[in-house]
Amino acid sequence: MASQADLVARGKALEIIRKSFERLLDQIYRGEKPVLVIPKRTLSNTIYDLTNKMLLLGPEVQYRSFVDVNESKKFMQTILMASIIHEALRNNEYPTIRDLYYRGKHTISFKSLTGKVVSENTWDEQRESDSVIRDLEVFLSVLREDLLILSKEKGKVVGNLVIKSGDDVIDLSKMGHGAYAIEPTPDLIELVDVDAEYILVVEKDAVFQQLHRYGFWKKYKAILVTSAGQPDRATRRFVRRLSDEYKLPVYILADSDPYGFYIYSVFKAGSITLSYESERLATPSAKFVGVMMSDIFGDDIFRKILRNRDARKALGEIAPGVDELKPKSPYLSEAERSNFIIKAKPKDIERAVELVGYRVAEVCIEDKEIKSKTKKKEGLTGYPWFTTSQWVRELCIFFNTLSKLEIEALASKGLKFLADKYIPEKISAGDWID
Amino acid sequence: MASQADLVARGKALEIIRKSFERLLDQIYRGEKPVLVIPKRTLSNTIYDLTNKMLLLGPEVQYRSFVDVNESKKFMQTILMASIIHEALRNNEYPTIRDLYYRGKHTISFKSLTGKVVSENTWDEQRESDSVIRDLEVFLSVLREDLLILSKEKGKVVGNLVIKSGDDVIDLSKMGHGAYAIEPTPDLIELVDVDAEYILVVEKDAVFQQLHRYGFWKKYKAILVTSAGQPDRATRRFVRRLSDEYKLPVYILADSDPYGFYIYSVFKAGSITLSYESERLATPSAKFVGVMMSDIFGDDIFRKILRNRDARKALGEIAPGVDELKPKSPYLSEAERSNFIIKAKPKDIERAVELVGYRVAEVCIEDKEIKSKTKKKEGLTGYPWFTTSQWVRELCIFFNTLSKLEIEALASKGLKFLADKYIPEKISAGDWID
Repeated sequence: MASQADLVARGKALEIIRKSFERLLDQIYRGEKPVLVIPKRTLSNTIYDLTNKMLLLGPEVQYRSFVDVNESKKFMQTILMASIIHEALRNNEYPTIRDLYYRGKHTISFKSLTGKVVSENTWDEQRESDSVIRDLEVFLSVLREDLLILSKEKGKVVGNLVIKSGDDVIDLSKMGHGAYAIEPTPDLIELVDVDAEYILVVEKDAVFQQLHRYGFWKKYKAILVTSAGQPDRATRRFVRRLSDEYKLPVYILADSDPYGFYIYSVFKAGSITLSYESERLATPSAKFVGVMMSDIFGDDIFRKILRNRDARKALGEIAPGVDELKPKSPYLSEAERSNFIIKAKPKDIERAVELVGYRVAEVCIEDKEIKSKTKKKEGLTGYPWFTTSQWVRELCIFFNTLSKLEIEALASKGLKFLADKYIPEKISAGDWID
Repeated sequence: MASQADLVARGKALEIIRKSFERLLDQIYRGEKPVLVIPKRTLSNTIYDLTNKMLLLGPEVQYRSFVDVNESKKFMQTILMASIIHEALRNNEYPTIRDLYYRGKHTISFKSLTGKVVSENTWDEQRESDSVIRDLEVFLSVLREDLLILSKEKGKVVGNLVIKSGDDVIDLSKMGHGAYAIEPTPDLIELVDVDAEYILVVEKDAVFQQLHRYGFWKKYKAILVTSAGQPDRATRRFVRRLSDEYKLPVYILADSDPYGFYIYSVFKAGSITLSYESERLATPSAKFVGVMMSDIFGDDIFRKILRNRDARKALGEIAPGVDELKPKSPYLSEAERSNFIIKAKPKDIERAVELVGYRVAEVCIEDKEIKSKTKKKEGLTGYPWFTTSQWVRELCIFFNTLSKLEIEALASKGLKFLADKYIPEKISAGDWID
């Protein structure tokens, strides 16, 4: 009962696995020691590609030799996982990474040279088998989804968009009050027809529901997507493909807090720990449309900091252009602010320092006690896509107010305000952060 | 741009609010003290209705008088929330409970009798405003969804099912590899046509994806639903409506652990703390098809316990028929068990005691240390729908093995095993727990 798309994908995946491991077989036939050469997935081999504006794997590789005692277990694990995935493909199955963990989990008993029976588990924790799957992804130069490995999927979409998924042609403008739940293998989707001007990605499902119900996407010719929190791989890949293939701008609407900023970051540059995926999952052109700290507070606070010559110089060195930013007025009144804002937690502050680097925190935080708490992150220099003038302004306001705000707070000012003023106004005025 | 269904729902909701508060206005016009009479949502006023097999609110009510100092704040909060919801309805909005919290949150300043200015917040925490919304639900005899209050929504569905949602007619058998994400107001869905023999609710989204992709629902004429973990209100209501209106049996497939059993329980009887919703959200006929502890271990362990006369007597008193259960053989081999099972955590044991009551734990647990740890739950007698012979057997096996198992472990035995043997075999043999 599998779809035609799945059959084709299965064939391709089997071929990739066969070809990649043929080399190993050749080595054995030639009497050589079998060795796998796998790109390194370490942080030191993760580079931010300034041209493509995304995190990518560098050129370093690791060797896994069958005859090296230090590498033979990893070698065995890699071969085991590849064979399990190969078998699943042949059996018309759709394993998850959890399944693969279970499938491969067993104890190998063997006699050592001294005649003692030794037992060794293939793996104990899913962490281990997941890492092997990642190695296979970089070894085979595919995403696990290309091997028909499925996962849970939270992303939803509505809009003037016709897709072909499986054997069905689906009109995503005809989903009623519900939405289309994106499949876990978005590369198998055929984008048949799109009639939209941009993609709006909303962090929160509940806000997505409101905007959808209000008819936002119809009125503003948008494709409306929600990641329902931290985006999963399929949602990221789907957004990337839509953006690539139809040259649509992508705007991210998230909470105004370091966690919301991080969600934008994952869409834009990829996840720090899984840089090898970024090439296909990240959307480097994604823009953060809100909620900005400067939407809440304006930027008076930031200008006040800049009036200090040392601070201006320090911030200018990190992010040239900080003193050339256009002034911003807030969308919220004093009273609204006091009802809506939430106090930042220590974790928020820590995360903010990670994003923009310790120097910005040092310059912008006035409270000595809080400053001393961020001290332990002293080594951090921030991510390149956050050490820009606009983000430095946002994070500076955050460090000064230690406040955060949820999108829902804007919706509570009236859905009309959010849907007919805030979002369209900011997009048409270019009031977003690249 | 709102749908016709929404316009009608809006009109109805406005009318219900108007009518219900008219009484209050009458009291004022007649010079009486305004008092709200609201059903009590306390645990002591929560009863398990044996006929309807669900948790319901009892007959107790609470009074909220405007002129009683102890009640006037609650009175004010209730009126405030009702007016905010009323306004949102009139303004074509779709607030969430989070919005409503923000909308109502403000400080009221007034002069006390002694001339001092006193400030009081309408509410501080969302917990407070949520409680007021619940009061309004029972006061108005509606679910919040009837007032077009939206929420995030995780439930998905595929199958031979045509619905009308909003202004669209949607064929849920034409979702490709994706799925239909259920709307937050499932009572507005019109079930147009259903061609299925049962509803299979899968706890885990990833397993749902696998079964969907495999074509399970086509092959076995099932409606496939996932709650993606703990079910939300809309998923529960949707399943209930499908089951009611088409007389379809509902089978729950969840992990074999007390948390999975609890998910079944929420679908079946409702959430303990929100019994007032059960009347419309619970599906009393829902059956737990697996994964059962006895699917993993068989029931030898339980039979061994029953051989003890005292134990048999004790368990028989709790759940008549424990010694008349048909014997069960396990689906897993010894080797599979040892690879697949996970050790239960203290929280699992605690939850199990909550479900079935302390007495079962006392009788079934042999280890003195573990037994002593469950002691603090001594007062618990378990929920009526868990103190049945079949559940007592399941929980007894759990208490004896302190093991759990995920659905994924079964999928790792082969998707064919899960889809073509385990589920259909259990359903056709009636090997489920009511």
